[in-house]
Amino acid sequence: MNTMKESAGASEIGALMMAMGGKALGVSQVLALTGTPQKNAALRAAAAAIRNRRAEILAANARDLRDARERRLSAALLDRLELNAGRIEAMAGGLEEVAALPDPVGTVAAQWTRPNGLEISRVRVPLGVIGIIYESRPNVTADAGALCLKSGNAVILRGGSEAERSNRAIHACLVDGLVAAGLPPEAIQLVPTKDRQAVGYMLSGMTDFIDVIVPRGGKSLVARVQQEARVPVIGHLEGNCHVYVDGGADLNMARAIVLNAKLRRTGVCGAAETLLVDKACVATHLGPIVRELLDAGCEVRGDAAVQAVDARVKAATEDDWYTEYLDSVIAARVVDGVEGAVAHIAKYGSAHTESIVTEDKAVAERFLSEVDSAIVLWNASTQFADGGEFGMGAEIGISTDRFHARGPVGVEQLTSYKYAVRGNGQVRAG
Amino acid sequence: MNTMKESAGASEIGALMMAMGGKALGVSQVLALTGTPQKNAALRAAAAAIRNRRAEILAANARDLRDARERRLSAALLDRLELNAGRIEAMAGGLEEVAALPDPVGTVAAQWTRPNGLEISRVRVPLGVIGIIYESRPNVTADAGALCLKSGNAVILRGGSEAERSNRAIHACLVDGLVAAGLPPEAIQLVPTKDRQAVGYMLSGMTDFIDVIVPRGGKSLVARVQQEARVPVIGHLEGNCHVYVDGGADLNMARAIVLNAKLRRTGVCGAAETLLVDKACVATHLGPIVRELLDAGCEVRGDAAVQAVDARVKAATEDDWYTEYLDSVIAARVVDGVEGAVAHIAKYGSAHTESIVTEDKAVAERFLSEVDSAIVLWNASTQFADGGEFGMGAEIGISTDRFHARGPVGVEQLTSYKYAVRGNGQVRAG
Repeated sequence: MNTMKESAGASEIGALMMAMGGKALGVSQVLALTGTPQKNAALRAAAAAIRNRRAEILAANARDLRDARERRLSAALLDRLELNAGRIEAMAGGLEEVAALPDPVGTVAAQWTRPNGLEISRVRVPLGVIGIIYESRPNVTADAGALCLKSGNAVILRGGSEAERSNRAIHACLVDGLVAAGLPPEAIQLVPTKDRQAVGYMLSGMTDFIDVIVPRGGKSLVARVQQEARVPVIGHLEGNCHVYVDGGADLNMARAIVLNAKLRRTGVCGAAETLLVDKACVATHLGPIVRELLDAGCEVRGDAAVQAVDARVKAATEDDWYTEYLDSVIAARVVDGVEGAVAHIAKYGSAHTESIVTEDKAVAERFLSEVDSAIVLWNASTQFADGGEFGMGAEIGISTDRFHARGPVGVEQLTSYKYAVRGNGQVRAG
Repeated sequence: MNTMKESAGASEIGALMMAMGGKALGVSQVLALTGTPQKNAALRAAAAAIRNRRAEILAANARDLRDARERRLSAALLDRLELNAGRIEAMAGGLEEVAALPDPVGTVAAQWTRPNGLEISRVRVPLGVIGIIYESRPNVTADAGALCLKSGNAVILRGGSEAERSNRAIHACLVDGLVAAGLPPEAIQLVPTKDRQAVGYMLSGMTDFIDVIVPRGGKSLVARVQQEARVPVIGHLEGNCHVYVDGGADLNMARAIVLNAKLRRTGVCGAAETLLVDKACVATHLGPIVRELLDAGCEVRGDAAVQAVDARVKAATEDDWYTEYLDSVIAARVVDGVEGAVAHIAKYGSAHTESIVTEDKAVAERFLSEVDSAIVLWNASTQFADGGEFGMGAEIGISTDRFHARGPVGVEQLTSYKYAVRGNGQVRAG
């Protein structure tokens, strides 16, 4: 190894990243004052470019896929990486949906007048420069770029190395859109190197340029980001989501909700991972719900009471209560009423999304109040944990942080605010 | 030096801090569900305790002051450290004011119903455990403890070592209040050691317990916190505040606002530090404003145009534009209209508070829109940068961060939110 060369490489990457940061900061001041029509025009032009350049994107993706297969990456990763005509159209449509969303920038979140006549407004403003670090799905390039642009932020995107060519092809379409709308192409920048050092710069070396980092990916990525970041992070940790079937639950509703929460899609962060059943309804509710899951092909890992219901139930270990399977597996146990459910969730949960099924309003309200998760539901599936389902439009993920943004992170959550105060000569006494 | 002993000391402090963190985390779950009357009762009982134990607090403060004088600390620091009957009454009154504030916890910030019937509410919840690191003013112990309690958060307070005895005496009164209201005394904990390692633990060793750190103090403290913190920080950087006198300004209003913004109190973060005057009104406005400042005893450091007005004006250097004097000194220069003012503020400002004086609404609105500071004012003094003046009640400071909380940080800004979703059996399709 040539140490000289290595260190030259490091300083080259440093220079590259700093240049990207400087450009992003400069452009962010333009974007903050850019009107909604111009941002929307860029998004619609980018959607058109994605449709027009579909063959190019597919060719780039095919090369990424070929390399990934040669490197024997997992089938799940290959699926996340793969683009096809439907996924490309979905990306283009997603850009148009973001264009159709209301623009949060400049909206007045609150307004009041003081006794001395000062009129105070809290006005939404962009965060500034957002750094997004993500893994294999190339559609994040389009989604994240669009959400940041709509919210008036400059963005630096760092995608997974296995999707490098796909990301570049998609990014080129976003740039087409920016240029067509007369906006600076530096509004959406893609880090042009696979070098892992680029991530280090984004996390700790570019504090003068980057206002917030959003990691999108698996546990190890998010953990690295939260460990190393020297700028604020909007984190998206795991969704170890629970459904609690209370003694007061309607059995048919409980069956439908549990089945949907677990199995509609097992790979999403809002999928249920643990079923809690009130001991008050073990005799009536536990068997039908567990058998329905088993019959649908779901593995059930239960405590003694759940195992007693059906021979197909495996024994749960302590680890199961902590596990986000993202698969057709569910942990299940009997708890002592809503108090037991709240205690279990507080101990093992990840504060993402939990649901109670009950007809008892008082019990439901207690659950909604006492469970400290970003999203708590009553009589509805945990799979509703999604910005689109919340009516917030596209999202960049579900935040499990308590700070700044919690739950679905859409365009509004990518803004800050400032106070505009209008007076007529007021000076402060005393 | 005995290395064994040192490392034993370090591990003792570690154990102490971890125990405090664990207690705070446990209590935070209780506080999140504590009703407003009980929190208010604790605050009022603490106010009564501060009045009842005034002699004790004064005696503790006298010992802190004696030590500080022996260590020849500055007169400014001695003033910040000193308590007297008036300041103690102000602390007690402050606790009662926080009790009188609306409780943000549980309030519904937004509510909507989806086409599928899901009712979604965004409900305010506490942040959890707040760590506050502050310097010499002992009243911060009472103010910060009260704001955190009211917002349903557990707090770990780390005051300046020079105020150790005063802080302990005030903290004892807060604990009296908690106990009198039947709340756990661990809701407001004071770090009982002067050891600087305690701060290190709060910043980076207690990420499992502390949700957010609020530094209150000078630049070096805030810089250390932002450098070392491994948890989110609500930062309070310097207030390099500007007043821009536009060509369209009423002269008398401009004189009054500049004088007040600079001199009402020079030591507060909302004090004006730089005066910008439109070249369009140099002939009419610059002279009277500058002479009024000089005559009031303020040192003026100006560019050539400002120096030409009065022989008492000193020459400003490049450094002056960056400086937060916190003293009877102001930098002053002529700029080319609102565009020049915005550019100067973008380059040299600290994004805290800026004011424009003008009768021209279009120019004012441009300033309010383009200046990217936490607080932007039109025809009012920068000294209104204060949570109380905003009608938000007491505050823990003015945040110059863009993330989570910007501007005055009151009880509402010490909360997060969660989504409560009420359904009637909805499952997600597709």
